[in-house]
Amino acid sequence: MKIGFIGLGAIGTPMAHNLVAAGLDVTVWNRTADKCKPLVEAGATQGDSPADCAACDVLITMLADDAALSALVEEHDLIGALGQTTVHVNMATVSIDFAKAMAEQHAAAGKTYIAAPVLGRPDIAKAGKLQIVAAGDADAIETARPAFDVMGAKVWPVGTDAYRANVIKLATNYMLMAAVETMGEAAALTASYDVEPGDFLEIVTSSVFAAPAYQGYAPAMAQRDYDNPEGFKLALGAKDVDLALAAGHANNVALPVGAAVRERLAEGMAAGEGDLDLSALAEGSRRAAHLDD
Amino acid sequence: MKIGFIGLGAIGTPMAHNLVAAGLDVTVWNRTADKCKPLVEAGATQGDSPADCAACDVLITMLADDAALSALVEEHDLIGALGQTTVHVNMATVSIDFAKAMAEQHAAAGKTYIAAPVLGRPDIAKAGKLQIVAAGDADAIETARPAFDVMGAKVWPVGTDAYRANVIKLATNYMLMAAVETMGEAAALTASYDVEPGDFLEIVTSSVFAAPAYQGYAPAMAQRDYDNPEGFKLALGAKDVDLALAAGHANNVALPVGAAVRERLAEGMAAGEGDLDLSALAEGSRRAAHLDD
Amino acid sequence: MKIGFIGLGAIGTPMAHNLVAAGLDVTVWNRTADKCKPLVEAGATQGDSPADCAACDVLITMLADDAALSALVEEHDLIGALGQTTVHVNMATVSIDFAKAMAEQHAAAGKTYIAAPVLGRPDIAKAGKLQIVAAGDADAIETARPAFDVMGAKVWPVGTDAYRANVIKLATNYMLMAAVETMGEAAALTASYDVEPGDFLEIVTSSVFAAPAYQGYAPAMAQRDYDNPEGFKLALGAKDVDLALAAGHANNVALPVGAAVRERLAEGMAAGEGDLDLSALAEGSRRAAHLDD
Amino acid sequence: MKIGFIGLGAIGTPMAHNLVAAGLDVTVWNRTADKCKPLVEAGATQGDSPADCAACDVLITMLADDAALSALVEEHDLIGALGQTTVHVNMATVSIDFAKAMAEQHAAAGKTYIAAPVLGRPDIAKAGKLQIVAAGDADAIETARPAFDVMGAKVWPVGTDAYRANVIKLATNYMLMAAVETMGEAAALTASYDVEPGDFLEIVTSSVFAAPAYQGYAPAMAQRDYDNPEGFKLALGAKDVDLALAAGHANNVALPVGAAVRERLAEGMAAGEGDLDLSALAEGSRRAAHLDD
Repeated sequence: MKIGFIGLGAIGTPMAHNLVAAGLDVTVWNRTADKCKPLVEAGATQGDSPADCAACDVLITMLADDAALSALVEEHDLIGALGQTTVHVNMATVSIDFAKAMAEQHAAAGKTYIAAPVLGRPDIAKAGKLQIVAAGDADAIETARPAFDVMGAKVWPVGTDAYRANVIKLATNYMLMAAVETMGEAAALTASYDVEPGDFLEIVTSSVFAAPAYQGYAPAMAQRDYDNPEGFKLALGAKDVDLALAAGHANNVALPVGAAVRERLAEGMAAGEGDLDLSALAEGSRRAAHLDD
Repeated sequence: MKIGFIGLGAIGTPMAHNLVAAGLDVTVWNRTADKCKPLVEAGATQGDSPADCAACDVLITMLADDAALSALVEEHDLIGALGQTTVHVNMATVSIDFAKAMAEQHAAAGKTYIAAPVLGRPDIAKAGKLQIVAAGDADAIETARPAFDVMGAKVWPVGTDAYRANVIKLATNYMLMAAVETMGEAAALTASYDVEPGDFLEIVTSSVFAAPAYQGYAPAMAQRDYDNPEGFKLALGAKDVDLALAAGHANNVALPVGAAVRERLAEGMAAGEGDLDLSALAEGSRRAAHLDD
Repeated sequence: MKIGFIGLGAIGTPMAHNLVAAGLDVTVWNRTADKCKPLVEAGATQGDSPADCAACDVLITMLADDAALSALVEEHDLIGALGQTTVHVNMATVSIDFAKAMAEQHAAAGKTYIAAPVLGRPDIAKAGKLQIVAAGDADAIETARPAFDVMGAKVWPVGTDAYRANVIKLATNYMLMAAVETMGEAAALTASYDVEPGDFLEIVTSSVFAAPAYQGYAPAMAQRDYDNPEGFKLALGAKDVDLALAAGHANNVALPVGAAVRERLAEGMAAGEGDLDLSALAEGSRRAAHLDD
Repeated sequence: MKIGFIGLGAIGTPMAHNLVAAGLDVTVWNRTADKCKPLVEAGATQGDSPADCAACDVLITMLADDAALSALVEEHDLIGALGQTTVHVNMATVSIDFAKAMAEQHAAAGKTYIAAPVLGRPDIAKAGKLQIVAAGDADAIETARPAFDVMGAKVWPVGTDAYRANVIKLATNYMLMAAVETMGEAAALTASYDVEPGDFLEIVTSSVFAAPAYQGYAPAMAQRDYDNPEGFKLALGAKDVDLALAAGHANNVALPVGAAVRERLAEGMAAGEGDLDLSALAEGSRRAAHLDD
C-alpha cells in the first residue's frame, strides 16, 4: 500500500516516521521541504509536488489549520489530483464548516474523503499510541486501517458523515483546555493556602484525575517550567477553543465554561506565553491572584 | 484500639461498616439513632451520647457540613468530652474558616485534632478505596492510620496545619464539578451534531479522560438516568463549589471556571434536580441548547 | 451635494428618508429593489446600479455585515466606480479586520474612504438623532458633514484611522449587550423575590441607569413583549458580541463579561428568539431560574 | 419629630448632616464616638447609648454590614429599646437572609421595622439626592417620610415586605458592578486599538450610557486616578456582588455576568486595590490585556 503524507508539524512528523518505520511505502511532501529530509533518510520518498502524494492509495493530510489545507487544495488542485480509488484521510483538527465543505467538494468530484482526527500530544504520536476518531465511508476507513494501526492505539469509527469525527475532536480538546485551566485555578487556590502545587497536583493526578488530560500537564505546572517543544502550545489551545465555540454557536449550544477558559487563554497570550506549553495557563491563575507579587 | 464514629451519611456509613468488618472496636452515634442499627448488628457498639465516642482512642466525625459539626460540638461539649490522648479526626468536607476554628478550639482545650477529608464517592467508600488527605500532628495521623488503612487506598499526609487537607479537598471537588459540567457541555455540543452522547463519552473516558472524575459520571449522562442513591448529589456539588469560591475569595484568588460552573448548578437546582446525581448537570446544557424542544 | 445611498435595512431606511426629507439630492440602490420605492416616492432617485450611487459626492453604505459589503465591492467593482473626489462613508458595523482591509483597498485605488458607524436604534435613526462616530481623513469627514448633520445629533471625530471608529462602535455595542443581559438577570433576581420586573426596572431606569441603553429595553422586559420591528434583534446582538470578542482576541484582550453574555445570547437563539428584540435576553434569565415552570 | 441616627460612615455622615441642617431634632450615636463631633457642632445631640437613639420617633440605622447591625442589636438590646411607636428604618445594604430575620425579630417584639436602602454615592448623599427604596408598613413609611424628603430626591415604596427593598438594592448594585466592569473591559479593548480611554468614555457616557452608573466612574477611568475618598470602594463592590449572588443562589437564580464580575473584583483586591474607587476595575482589564507591560 502506498501512502502519501502531507503536513510535517509537531504531530504529523512522528506519525509519518512511524509509518516509514513500519515498512510502509510513504511519499512525503511539505511546504517547507527540508522537513522531509529526516523522513527520506529513514526510507520515505520525497514527492515533487502534492500531486505525487495524492496519487497514492491513501493520502494523509495533517495541516495546521483550515487555511493551510484550503490553500493546498486550491493552489495544487489536490482534489483533482487524487486517484479514483485514493482515500484522502484528513487527520487535522479543522472547523466544522470546513469539514463539511471538504466532504462536499470531494463528493462533487467523485473522490473519497474521510476525517480521522487524532487525540494525543507529540509524545503519544511518537509512541504510535494516538486515539484515532474516524468518520466517513466504512470501506474507506478499512482501506486506511493499516496506517491507522501503525499510528494509533485505537480507531473509533463514528459514522459516515466525516464532520462527526471533527466535532468529537473539537469537543475533546474543549474538555482538555477546560481541564488544564481548572487545574491551574485549583493549584493557585491551594498555593494561596501554602500548599505546594506539586503536592496538590500529585494527589489529584494519582486519584480522581488520573488521566492523560491532567497527568500530561501537571508536572510542568508543578515545576513551573513550560518550555516543552513536544507539548501542546497554549496558542493552539486558544485556536481549538475558538473552533469549539464556533461549532457551538453555529448550533446555538451555550458553552459557558469554554467561554471563561477562552478569556484566560487570551490573558496567557497577552503575557507572551502563546508558544509555551498549555500548562502555562496555570501562570494566569497565579498572576490573577498576585501570588508572586 | 477503640474508635468512635459519628456521622452515618452516604459516605460515613460504608466507612464505619468497613471499620467494623475489619474487627476494630467501634462505637457509633448518630443524631438519627436508627441509622446505627445495621452497624450494631454488624458488631459495633451504639453509644449513648457523642461523649461515648469521644472517649475512644480515635474519634472520627463525618458530618454533612460546618453547621452539623458545629452544633454537635456546642450542644454536646464534644471537645471537652475528648480524652487527653484521643485523636479527633474530622473527615468531612468543611469550609476553611471552620477548619481553622476547629483546630484553634481543640488546641485551646489541649486536645488533638486532625483533618482527614476523603476523595471518592459512596461506592469507593464501600470498597475501602478512598483517598485520604490528612493534615495535623504527625503522631496523631499515625495513631489514626490503622483506621485509615481500612477505609482508604492511600493516605496523603500534607503537613501539620489541619486546614491544608481541607483546602486540597475543596480544590479537588472544585475540579470535579468543573469536569462534570464541562463533560456535559461537550456532550451537548456533540449531540447537536447528531453524535450520540454515549458514543462521545465512551471515547473520551477511554482515552484522554480515563479517570474516575469522568468515568464515574459518564454512564449516567449517556443513559440520561440520574437517579443514583449512591451518587454525589448535584446540590452537594453546589455547596462544595460555594466553599471553594469562598476559600478563593478569602485569599482573593479568582476562579472564573468555578464561577461559571456555580451558575449552571443553580440552574440545575432550579430545575428540581438538586437531589439527582451530579451528572444531571448535563441536562442543563441540553436545556440551554434546547436540544429536546 | 449629491449623495449615493446603498443599504436600506432597519437603520439605513430612516437615515435615507431623513436625507431626502432635508432636501438633499439622494440616489438610492438596494439589492432588493422594491425597498427603494418609498424613498423614490419621497423624492429620491433610484440608481440603476451601485455605480450610480458611487458616482456621487458622497457614497453612504449601510449594509448588514462584512459579507454584504464585500460582495457589493467585488461584484460591482464599487471601489473602481467611486469618483476621484467621492467620499465613501461606511456607516455599518463591521469587523476590525474588514475595516482595515476596506481602508487599504480604497487607499490602494486612490479613493477616499471613511468609517462612520452610528449609535442608536431604528427609532433614533428615524428621529435623526443618531450619534455618529467618524474616523478617516478630516477633510473627507467635513465633506460628509451636511449628511451627518441631517442623520445625527452629534458627530464624534476620532482620528484618521478609519478602524478606530469601528472599534468604538463594537465596544459600545459590547457594553449594550452586557447592559441588557445584566438588567435581565437583575430582573429575574428581583422577580424571584416577588418584585414585579416593571417596578424594579422603573426604579433603576429612573435613577442610576437612566440612559438609553436601559430605557430602550426595560419597557419590553417589563411587559415581556419582545415583538418590536423597530428594535435591535437579539441575533444581531450575538453577531456584534462576536465581532467585539474577535477584536479582543486579535489583541489578546480578555473580555470575560462579554464571553458570558455571548453564551446567554446562544441560549436565546436556541429558544427561537433571535428575531425578537434584544430585551428578550430577559427570558433566558427567567428560563434558567425556572421562574415560569 | 425626633430622629435617632446610628452609623456615621461614608454615606451615613452626610445623611445625618442633612437631617440636622434641615432643622430636625437628631440624636446621634456611633461606635467610634468622635465621629459624632462635627454633627454635634452642627446641632445634633450625642446619645449616651444606642437606646437614646431608639427612644426617638424614628430610628435610622446605617451600618456597614449585617454583622455590624447584628452586633448592635445583640449587645445593646436595640429592639427592646425601641419605643412602642418608634419606626426603625434600616437604610443599610444587608443580605436578604438578615433582612428577613430583622423583620421577624421586630415583629415578634411588637416593634416597627422598615427597610429603606439608598441608591447613590457619598456625593449624592451630601447633595440630599439619594433614591430611597422603602418597604414595610405603609404608615411607618409615612412616619419616616419627612426624613426621607430631606435625605433623598425620591422615595420608591415597594410593598410591605421589608426584604423587597433590600433585594432591589442588591440587584441595583449588581447592575452597577457589572456596568463598571464592562466599561473597563470596553475601555481596554479600545485602548488596545490606540483609542484613548478618555475619548471612548466621553462618547459612550454622553450618549447610550449617559447615566450616573457610568458617568460617576468614567472620569476616574479616563485619568486612571482612583483615589477617591468619597467614592464607592472596590472591596465594597465585591461584598455587594456576594450578597446578590447569595440572594440568587438562595432562589436558584443563575447570574452568570455577576459571577464573572466577582472574579474580576477578586483580582482587583489581590492587586491591592480594594480600597480604591470601584472604577479601578478598569485596571484589571488592562492588566489582563498586559497593556502596560
